[in-house]
Amino acid sequence: MTSPFVAGPPVRIAGAPRGPLAGMTFAAKDLFDVAGHPTGGGNPDWARHHPVPTRHAWAVQRLLDAGATLIGKTVTDEVSLGILGENPFDGTPLNPKAPERVPGGSSSGSASAVAQALCDTALGTDTGGSVRVPSSFCGLYGIRPTHGRLDLTGMMPQAPSSDTTGWFARDAQTFARVSETMLGEPIPASLPQRLVVAVDAFGFADAGTAAALQPMVRRLSALMRETREDVLAPPGLSVWARAQQTLQRHEAWLTFRDWIDRDNPRLAFSVARNLALAGTSSDSERQWAALMRSEARARLGWLLPPGTVLCLPTTPFPAPRKGLSLATLDPLRARIGCLTAHGGLTGMPQVNLPGSDVDGLPVGLSILGARGSDAALVAVANAMEASR
Amino acid sequence: MTSPFVAGPPVRIAGAPRGPLAGMTFAAKDLFDVAGHPTGGGNPDWARHHPVPTRHAWAVQRLLDAGATLIGKTVTDEVSLGILGENPFDGTPLNPKAPERVPGGSSSGSASAVAQALCDTALGTDTGGSVRVPSSFCGLYGIRPTHGRLDLTGMMPQAPSSDTTGWFARDAQTFARVSETMLGEPIPASLPQRLVVAVDAFGFADAGTAAALQPMVRRLSALMRETREDVLAPPGLSVWARAQQTLQRHEAWLTFRDWIDRDNPRLAFSVARNLALAGTSSDSERQWAALMRSEARARLGWLLPPGTVLCLPTTPFPAPRKGLSLATLDPLRARIGCLTAHGGLTGMPQVNLPGSDVDGLPVGLSILGARGSDAALVAVANAMEASR
Repeated sequence: MTSPFVAGPPVRIAGAPRGPLAGMTFAAKDLFDVAGHPTGGGNPDWARHHPVPTRHAWAVQRLLDAGATLIGKTVTDEVSLGILGENPFDGTPLNPKAPERVPGGSSSGSASAVAQALCDTALGTDTGGSVRVPSSFCGLYGIRPTHGRLDLTGMMPQAPSSDTTGWFARDAQTFARVSETMLGEPIPASLPQRLVVAVDAFGFADAGTAAALQPMVRRLSALMRETREDVLAPPGLSVWARAQQTLQRHEAWLTFRDWIDRDNPRLAFSVARNLALAGTSSDSERQWAALMRSEARARLGWLLPPGTVLCLPTTPFPAPRKGLSLATLDPLRARIGCLTAHGGLTGMPQVNLPGSDVDGLPVGLSILGARGSDAALVAVANAMEASR
Repeated sequence: MTSPFVAGPPVRIAGAPRGPLAGMTFAAKDLFDVAGHPTGGGNPDWARHHPVPTRHAWAVQRLLDAGATLIGKTVTDEVSLGILGENPFDGTPLNPKAPERVPGGSSSGSASAVAQALCDTALGTDTGGSVRVPSSFCGLYGIRPTHGRLDLTGMMPQAPSSDTTGWFARDAQTFARVSETMLGEPIPASLPQRLVVAVDAFGFADAGTAAALQPMVRRLSALMRETREDVLAPPGLSVWARAQQTLQRHEAWLTFRDWIDRDNPRLAFSVARNLALAGTSSDSERQWAALMRSEARARLGWLLPPGTVLCLPTTPFPAPRKGLSLATLDPLRARIGCLTAHGGLTGMPQVNLPGSDVDGLPVGLSILGARGSDAALVAVANAMEASR
């Protein structure tokens, strides 16, 4: 049983004595700087050549200032390159809802710590799905905010055009309180009134997962004035996923190549392979991917005017078993990417709603809204929990 | 200062009480099975899923039966994929002749242990240069025998069409005694009579290295009846190197892909990258490489009839400094490959002769002979030491 917290001296920093989150505890993925503690990044060769930070990351400081107390730094997939939460150096944090299964990643320890009730909330990062996927697999509320909205100072980058800071909670009330602090705006009382059900995404998910989410879709629909079905990605979810993978991997390669060149770091084969192959992508592939990104942004701008939310399965299936082979996992990773790629590609905010399961294994329903509609999505989360 | 021996319980197995090597000590690269001890292969994720061997490798048994005592297992580059001897898990064994420099690899610990006089001889493996390069960098006698001549049972494979078992010694007499045992034939008293100086290989080496080897070339020439200059690789040393790299990497990929698939092992980025890129080579590239291999074998068959040896610089330069960046090392590795590729490509035996240096850093002169002429090459080594 692997701890969700990174090894090393304990980390505990008391929050401000008064504040909206006073009395709450939180953990931070080991991609966020905490002054006086090395930022490990999930890899034994990262901290060695990166100085110990002297300032807290913006997100950490934000929660401390609001009164929450930091109680630990959490395990992450190596330099955030992973979606399952199996780190060969630090182990696989427990998924308490599915102990034989992965917790999801890369914000694996943050999701695990919250799911185990070791803290009230936890900071994660989401570039290609790293908050949304562990939220779905561990049965948590989780948000990928609008890209560019939060200050990412002190957060280890991966692919800057897709990187976001997100957070987890077990219940909607805690989720809303933390979200108010992080977003810097109140959660509105009124809800969006139009729901789009993404038929391509539901069709892409495993049949059992799509079926398990239907009661939640009905409850969600009952909160709205109108519901319609539409396609999220007209060119194909797999086409969007390909574009996002091309752009994200290339940016990750640019982010990490100096470190790789200097340190020749130890990495899981799958992580090294993806970086190595990213280094060989062609200009024309990347040019095409950038055009597809523009089209995807336009599509979601049209599909999601203010007051509209779209729902889709967060992941196509519940958490896979731990320790599967690469040949088994690579196609699963690719399928997950088809349901998460729109996030990094378009920057729209997304919230995972827990509450469904397939044979006891959590699967989440995601709601997606226009840029800047983060608080409205959190309001929907609140209303969904109240409607149970 | 990293030990040349792998971590773990001490390994000591007494040799047969009588025998030609009685009283001698040896070490074995951690690619050779030693009954009761895990074969680590230079990677923390190798032994986990490979059973502890119950029999000694053929080469280990051969030396034990001849009376030599095994005193340890030695550090190797990860699964023998490396030429410099920097293992991020086990460290870099000391090159006592050049303490700020790498020892060469992948038989790094075996070369280091012999060079430090911690044992009389040591077993290595040579697929793409893994005995020849550390011999050159550490100033040792070292042999890559005729491919297919020795029984490789119990030796971890890399690229079977190129894999060989080799060994190191500090002096020619010890080298000859061990060689008689390993080859199973006496070292002849008579010497080859014709020397070919590989002008392309000398031209390819750094000027300082080529110049440093000239006195050895002259002494070698003085032992022969005739000396002439010729080209080793008419299509280009770099063309042979490309063919060998294509074939060797592809075979290594076939050797390790099941392990990689099952374990997603931790590997240095450079090792994982080369395996990942090997997995993408095309049929047509490999078909071309196989044709070039046939031509290279024909070339050396014609160039090296029995009674003829060819000499060339073993490496184009002495040992590089430790801890250089990938961007610096990759071109150096490629240049080393140009002077070693003929070994794996053609299977001809080769012996490294120590005795030269560039500013105090060892560089070796190699002699290459016809298939099966291993003992004749050892005889030349003996005569060269006697002629000093």
